[in-house]
Amino acid sequence: MSEAPFEKIALIGIGLIGSSIARDVKALGLAGEISVSTRSPDTLKRAEELELGTSYTASAAEAVKDADLVIVSVPVGASGAVAEQIAPTLRKGAILTDVGSTKASVIAQMQPHVPEGVHFIPGHPLAGTEKSGPDAGFEGLFAGRWCIFTPLPETDRTALDRLRGFWEALGSRVDEMDPQHHDKVLAIVSHLPHIIAYNIVGTADDLEAVTQSEVIKYSASGFRDFTRLAASDPTMWRDVCLHNKDAILEMLARFSEDLAYLQRAIRWGEGDKLFDLFTRTRTIRRSIVEAGQDVDEPDFGRHGAAKKS
Amino acid sequence: MSEAPFEKIALIGIGLIGSSIARDVKALGLAGEISVSTRSPDTLKRAEELELGTSYTASAAEAVKDADLVIVSVPVGASGAVAEQIAPTLRKGAILTDVGSTKASVIAQMQPHVPEGVHFIPGHPLAGTEKSGPDAGFEGLFAGRWCIFTPLPETDRTALDRLRGFWEALGSRVDEMDPQHHDKVLAIVSHLPHIIAYNIVGTADDLEAVTQSEVIKYSASGFRDFTRLAASDPTMWRDVCLHNKDAILEMLARFSEDLAYLQRAIRWGEGDKLFDLFTRTRTIRRSIVEAGQDVDEPDFGRHGAAKKS
Repeated sequence: MSEAPFEKIALIGIGLIGSSIARDVKALGLAGEISVSTRSPDTLKRAEELELGTSYTASAAEAVKDADLVIVSVPVGASGAVAEQIAPTLRKGAILTDVGSTKASVIAQMQPHVPEGVHFIPGHPLAGTEKSGPDAGFEGLFAGRWCIFTPLPETDRTALDRLRGFWEALGSRVDEMDPQHHDKVLAIVSHLPHIIAYNIVGTADDLEAVTQSEVIKYSASGFRDFTRLAASDPTMWRDVCLHNKDAILEMLARFSEDLAYLQRAIRWGEGDKLFDLFTRTRTIRRSIVEAGQDVDEPDFGRHGAAKKS
Repeated sequence: MSEAPFEKIALIGIGLIGSSIARDVKALGLAGEISVSTRSPDTLKRAEELELGTSYTASAAEAVKDADLVIVSVPVGASGAVAEQIAPTLRKGAILTDVGSTKASVIAQMQPHVPEGVHFIPGHPLAGTEKSGPDAGFEGLFAGRWCIFTPLPETDRTALDRLRGFWEALGSRVDEMDPQHHDKVLAIVSHLPHIIAYNIVGTADDLEAVTQSEVIKYSASGFRDFTRLAASDPTMWRDVCLHNKDAILEMLARFSEDLAYLQRAIRWGEGDKLFDLFTRTRTIRRSIVEAGQDVDEPDFGRHGAAKKS
């Protein structure tokens, strides 16, 4: 029917990630059909208004029929239920993948439901913004970003290469690692930063001595940087916390130990300890900019941006 | 000699803040002369190469002679020494101000040295980037930013209005508050965020299970946001920690309490507590954007910026 790499792609969940995939798939002509499914009637309606797919249904089981690629983009806590719903209608030979921020838990939830002959390849594109919902997605979200696969021992390499080709077509670079290692890496590079950001914004919100209007007014002194992460989707992040518990608790324990050390150095006026840490951390920023993982302009280039607006 | 609002402005310290002031003063013609002074011979030489002033000297005492406005822009721990050095040569009727991030300590250090007839007005422009040194400064750094004065009970209102006019000419909005309140406000909007950022970057740097190259490679998942603040000037921030100790320790204690509560909710799988916090924090981000204190684009507009480069 079509010359596209996939005959039919089913997108289960159509938020920031799902809708960005839809936009790229359409723009690049990667599928003959795109079926969109989400539980929320409002979101489904909005997806249709945005013309993100070629068909729309509240039933995930219906959406995956005849699809040769199924991408589950739901909060990780819902992965198991989705797998259970779609299992009976998954096409033999289909590739089933997800985009969840935790991998061991997603595998534990989904794998038992995956029928023989379906290639389940857990995945995680490291891309996104603090916005959520189908309107927040955009073409090119995955360009230049990493996508991590955590294949199972039995994963078929041909299916894996096909999925790799899909993400590479979206501009991503693909890495592979085992699920446990993925969860540890993400706990430090993503989960801990989000939790800390949520926490500091919560602390500021609770103060009596400083009014909330002062916090907002003077937020450009540093605080506003944290509010971006702390504006991320609450359901998604609740699920991440509950589904990568062990790695997150370990990182939190280390963070708290280090903070207690720093606090003690402040209390006792140990300037050398502070200076040592504050010098060491500069190096990492430099490496991140050199690796092309952040912009080089001061203040994330916001000063120029603010001026223009 | 000149029609400029000030005959001679002395800039003691010529880093990011001092050099940005110099650039604005030159561009706007706010002074007949600009004398630049810094202890570091290299920095002084660089300031001269950049043509930031009209005269250059390693002696702060020499620089302030005949100046009707003296702006001290040094790490807060050096404020007392600078005040002592310049006291004998300060001109009667001159305005003496600073830009330090802590105010009670700066007042305690400087005030005893201020000669009668000199108007000491402690100030703090809430502006800057993570870069430091004379090359990091730029014209317009203070435009649209707040500048907080913490005047003393005896402060002359005419002098204060004159200094207010100066900062307004640079595009700043001026606020007044008492020094203790300033230090509490800044502890939450600026000092705690910087300390937390330094701490999390240090924690990541220390991990064995996750390599540093992985932290860098995958930093766009959240971590990189913290590395910007953690790349700020180590001397400046060591001094802030040592000179706003009480307010910082109080904020750190609150932050740690809140984090323990969150950690417990994660351990016991209390999703509702997580969801409540993660929802509450979204509101603050919205208010900050509405107040014009941050850009509205997702991801600080970096996605577009990265594409352009």
